[in-house]
Amino acid sequence: MDLSIIAPVGGLLALIFATILYILVKKQSPGNEKMQELSNAIRKGAMAFLKSEYKVLIIFVIVVGLLLFIASNFPEIRIHWGTSIAFIIGAIFSGLAGNIGMRTATMANSRTAEGTKKHLSKGLSIAFSSGAVMGMSVVGLGVLGVFGIYILFTDFLNLTSVDATNILFGFGFGASSIALFARVGGGIYTKSADVGADLVGKVEAGIPEDDPRNPAVIADQVGDNVGDVAGMGADLFESYVDSIIATMALALVAVAGSQFFIPSDYGEKTVLIPLIVAGIGIISSIIATQLVILGRGKNVYSALRNSLFFATFLTAVLSGLVIWYMIYKWEPFAAMLAGLIGGIIIGLSTEYFTSEKNKPAKTIAEAAKTGPATVIIQGLQVGMISTIVPILAVVGAMLAAFYFSGFYGVALSAVGMLSILGISLATDCYGPVADNAQGISEMAGMGIEVRERTEQLDAVGNTTAAMGKGFAIGSAAITSLALIFTYILVATTILQDKGVLAQGEFLELSLGDPYLVSGIFIGAMLPFVFAALTMGAVGKAAYSMVEEVRYQFKEFDLLKSDKNKPDYERCVKISTNRALKEMIVPSLMAVVTPIVVGIILKPEGLAGLLMGSIATGFLLAVFLANSGGAWDNAKKYIESGNIGGKGSSNHKATVIGDTVGDPFKDTSGPSLNILIKLMSIVSLVFLPIIIAFI
Amino acid sequence: MDLSIIAPVGGLLALIFATILYILVKKQSPGNEKMQELSNAIRKGAMAFLKSEYKVLIIFVIVVGLLLFIASNFPEIRIHWGTSIAFIIGAIFSGLAGNIGMRTATMANSRTAEGTKKHLSKGLSIAFSSGAVMGMSVVGLGVLGVFGIYILFTDFLNLTSVDATNILFGFGFGASSIALFARVGGGIYTKSADVGADLVGKVEAGIPEDDPRNPAVIADQVGDNVGDVAGMGADLFESYVDSIIATMALALVAVAGSQFFIPSDYGEKTVLIPLIVAGIGIISSIIATQLVILGRGKNVYSALRNSLFFATFLTAVLSGLVIWYMIYKWEPFAAMLAGLIGGIIIGLSTEYFTSEKNKPAKTIAEAAKTGPATVIIQGLQVGMISTIVPILAVVGAMLAAFYFSGFYGVALSAVGMLSILGISLATDCYGPVADNAQGISEMAGMGIEVRERTEQLDAVGNTTAAMGKGFAIGSAAITSLALIFTYILVATTILQDKGVLAQGEFLELSLGDPYLVSGIFIGAMLPFVFAALTMGAVGKAAYSMVEEVRYQFKEFDLLKSDKNKPDYERCVKISTNRALKEMIVPSLMAVVTPIVVGIILKPEGLAGLLMGSIATGFLLAVFLANSGGAWDNAKKYIESGNIGGKGSSNHKATVIGDTVGDPFKDTSGPSLNILIKLMSIVSLVFLPIIIAFI
Repeated sequence: MDLSIIAPVGGLLALIFATILYILVKKQSPGNEKMQELSNAIRKGAMAFLKSEYKVLIIFVIVVGLLLFIASNFPEIRIHWGTSIAFIIGAIFSGLAGNIGMRTATMANSRTAEGTKKHLSKGLSIAFSSGAVMGMSVVGLGVLGVFGIYILFTDFLNLTSVDATNILFGFGFGASSIALFARVGGGIYTKSADVGADLVGKVEAGIPEDDPRNPAVIADQVGDNVGDVAGMGADLFESYVDSIIATMALALVAVAGSQFFIPSDYGEKTVLIPLIVAGIGIISSIIATQLVILGRGKNVYSALRNSLFFATFLTAVLSGLVIWYMIYKWEPFAAMLAGLIGGIIIGLSTEYFTSEKNKPAKTIAEAAKTGPATVIIQGLQVGMISTIVPILAVVGAMLAAFYFSGFYGVALSAVGMLSILGISLATDCYGPVADNAQGISEMAGMGIEVRERTEQLDAVGNTTAAMGKGFAIGSAAITSLALIFTYILVATTILQDKGVLAQGEFLELSLGDPYLVSGIFIGAMLPFVFAALTMGAVGKAAYSMVEEVRYQFKEFDLLKSDKNKPDYERCVKISTNRALKEMIVPSLMAVVTPIVVGIILKPEGLAGLLMGSIATGFLLAVFLANSGGAWDNAKKYIESGNIGGKGSSNHKATVIGDTVGDPFKDTSGPSLNILIKLMSIVSLVFLPIIIAFI
Repeated sequence: MDLSIIAPVGGLLALIFATILYILVKKQSPGNEKMQELSNAIRKGAMAFLKSEYKVLIIFVIVVGLLLFIASNFPEIRIHWGTSIAFIIGAIFSGLAGNIGMRTATMANSRTAEGTKKHLSKGLSIAFSSGAVMGMSVVGLGVLGVFGIYILFTDFLNLTSVDATNILFGFGFGASSIALFARVGGGIYTKSADVGADLVGKVEAGIPEDDPRNPAVIADQVGDNVGDVAGMGADLFESYVDSIIATMALALVAVAGSQFFIPSDYGEKTVLIPLIVAGIGIISSIIATQLVILGRGKNVYSALRNSLFFATFLTAVLSGLVIWYMIYKWEPFAAMLAGLIGGIIIGLSTEYFTSEKNKPAKTIAEAAKTGPATVIIQGLQVGMISTIVPILAVVGAMLAAFYFSGFYGVALSAVGMLSILGISLATDCYGPVADNAQGISEMAGMGIEVRERTEQLDAVGNTTAAMGKGFAIGSAAITSLALIFTYILVATTILQDKGVLAQGEFLELSLGDPYLVSGIFIGAMLPFVFAALTMGAVGKAAYSMVEEVRYQFKEFDLLKSDKNKPDYERCVKISTNRALKEMIVPSLMAVVTPIVVGIILKPEGLAGLLMGSIATGFLLAVFLANSGGAWDNAKKYIESGNIGGKGSSNHKATVIGDTVGDPFKDTSGPSLNILIKLMSIVSLVFLPIIIAFI
């Protein structure tokens, strides 16, 4: 039996399941008029952002697609025309997944609030279902895209498998490009709106969070969707397809001395294993979602976590069986398992370092006694120390996976980590929906009981979001490593074809090569610069927002009478425009740098650049995410009545920490995931052009 | 004519010149009784710290020296007994240089204050002369130590040059060990005293800086000497000798395929070139100091800078001539020049990013308008962006130097950068002396005119200190790179000797090796952990100080009457004890980690560890130093009457930034210089043991 059918079946099932969930969510009552009005405003804002973003993206996609197509016409540059097609499809699929996710999330928010009115478990079910629509769309489109392109070019257009995977890098590049703009633009959007709303609303005007009199309140809600739904989804879509593609490429090494890449007795069936594992992951995830959707939902957190563990377990067992059935080996399964375990360890470590229940966040709260400076120092320290476990987890997973199945195993470990993405993304996207529901219940004045319940949903959302971030970072790191090893393979192949390297000779990437060392140094620097640029972008965008909100408070006299309505749309527009403007420079930097460095410092220097950027990108991402998360929860710890409680000077000190942490954890940190993956995939796609310059 | 005589002659001249300057400084009037009393208290505190530190150090030095000696008795571990001797001598020389520097600096402070009473240029001359005593002691002891040991083992004990340089690694390791404890311990000391004095004195009690009623005021002054004189001196002593030793080792490559390391036609004379260049640098520096000491000193800053540029110019010209005379090549001179220019660029970049006259510090001050959170974010951003120029400068210097003379050239470029250390360290150490003089004039109530003049001296000291820090970081990075290339050479030699590698085969350090990649990841993480630990240490030590100062204010009723005297000594003791206690863990981490990683991940993994740690260590060091410096000067910018001026809420916001920046720039940042050099030299010394485990 040809088990590769599992991949498209899994992909289709995911899309069907997503459709069903979407219809089921839509059937729920959207609440009263006020709630619908708010939900519509959020939806409109979110769609307006997407539309504006697409305008920028379309130009980028067309230009790059054309460039790739033109390059494919030069026989000395070995790029197939299919790469440009795959690039465009990748971009469209990623955009589609984001669009579906946003539509669902912004429809589900008022319904979640309304559902919660009846029962907590009802609200949980709606919010989670809407998250699952996003999760399932991402994995469904991912698997179908990769599988479809591969089959199209091998079975129908009669290319070799190797050429087909080279074309697939284009698909990954398309997905990465959208992810870049979505993460960077979304990250800037969400934080500029948040900071703008808080600084003028909470601090200056003294009105509570989510107060409808605040002109930026809708932009703030939109931001949650733009950043945490569309941005997160595009980020993981990229990791998902990149890890699958890298594994496929590494399965096809058929040159002498390739034992390092993949054990020689694995056979050619291995190329489809990552797709099959992905298919199994989807089916397992669908089953596991039922634990949440149908559950009684007494304990929201454990419901979510149990379903994740169940999906992990099911995927692992089924994948092990299928791999054994296909090639009679257990080692690839062991490699995959290493990735799964590594991912869980990183997630748990993130939870430990950021949760208000644990020591790190509490020490930050304690540091508030000696003022904001010590809060900042303590938070930075927590973030720096928190890098130890994730680094060791990734190193451990990589070494184990390599031991079992070479570089192919390393790539497969990333696939393993990401195989349960369908459900883990559902858990992530549940967060912003619950957050929005909480906001709507507040703005629509739904009463204290509903608010308490939505708060409960929201609180769990914060924890899962932290874990989700850790997961996104870890998977980005190991996916990038897989891409580096793929890079070595692809560069070697091209150089052998050109006769620069003899057959059987591999590209030498030695630490004794000053070009490579230079690459490492420059690569290690880029995440610092990228983080600084994105932080700066938030600052500038937030400043525009602050000015607008101040202006509206004064102009419309909003605090005097409830009848004076703020102009939400103007704030939404400001966030949108500023985010799109500010995302251009860092985004182009990510795309252009590897190409320029590759041409100047040769493929060796580029390899160094990728390695350096992955190492510090991963470290900085963990540091920024965990510092930010810990500051946030230190503040919450004090707000729940400890060390002086809300309003005390200690509280104020932690508010400062939280404000510093906002761009850390929601803009700069997550953007680094994209940076490291994108630079790797750009390098893979443009290698033939770079090498043509040698 | 054997020009190698320049080395010992230069070394001796340096020590003689240091002695003369010491006597000249001592002859100056130490001021009135009150001033002498204060100066004595500072001196006593500084010496007490050194004494306590030595107690810890002696144990460490004896244990490690014994271990090395024992290891040298195993024939399968190729360590010569001379290594343990060289290690002890290196430790003693480094300690001696620090001791001389501290004695001079703590003697010169009141004399500088008294001299300034007469004339600004008199004060400048005294402060700078005392700094030059430190500078000359460091370079004199450095050159004589390396030259002496080399001659002893080659000419007198008939070892080969290669074996002699292997022994010299022990000398470097000794110097590094002292530097580690001096930088880490000194850094913790100075900031805990500073923060303790400020938090209780300035913030809680509302008394001005340097008020004699503050019990921590003497500890604070001691801290300046401990951190900026002894710590800085030991740091640069380490860079100085390490770069010379690495160059000597790389000059002696005589294996096939060694073109990469050093052009094969350079001949054996090249081994002494680094020592000769150092000697020339000393002589040039001595001449250049006269520009400052004898100058009229109208513009303090340009006097210091001109003398630096003059020394650079003279060293470059003379070195070029001598190298040409010796081997008829201009390329080593070009390599050296690359280092000199790189160093100057890094210094200027540091000045740009931290000076209150330039945009970066001003944007931080502007950010104060929206509160402390934006001050922090802006400062972090400035620090991150400021990594670009130093990274590119180091990469450029390395590539150029390699192009001219292989790895030998890279090491020589570090020697070039450090050749003018005699005078550049004088400029650095001038800073804390001026700072102390300023403190003494304040405490002794010397009147407004003297205070204004000492303030002027102090302000220039801050600028030169910032440049000095950039210089220390840049030289640490390029020295470490030279050590990595030396590592490749030494590892290859040992493995060839053992028959693991064939003759002519080099240790392969490929990015395609998962051990090496793991090493890079772990290495990249260490600076984050090290920075977190040292920041945490400052926090804990400062907390003890805060408690003590609060206690004394209450117990002795210090604010009520001037007759109630604080107990300065208790504060000095607390700083000393806490600093020594807190320095143990990070210090041991730096020494032990490379050995453990080398044994587990093999010499390949260890090479990765070194490369990863240098890349992020360098980046973090620049980031921390420049963020810290920029916050400091943003505060000063406001204090000089801009954006609201002293006491405004904007000022308060920048004070918070400055407090965060204190451990950044004075503890964690500088300690990273040591970390990266120390781990490299530890790896070189312990390689024979690590390889014995394979």
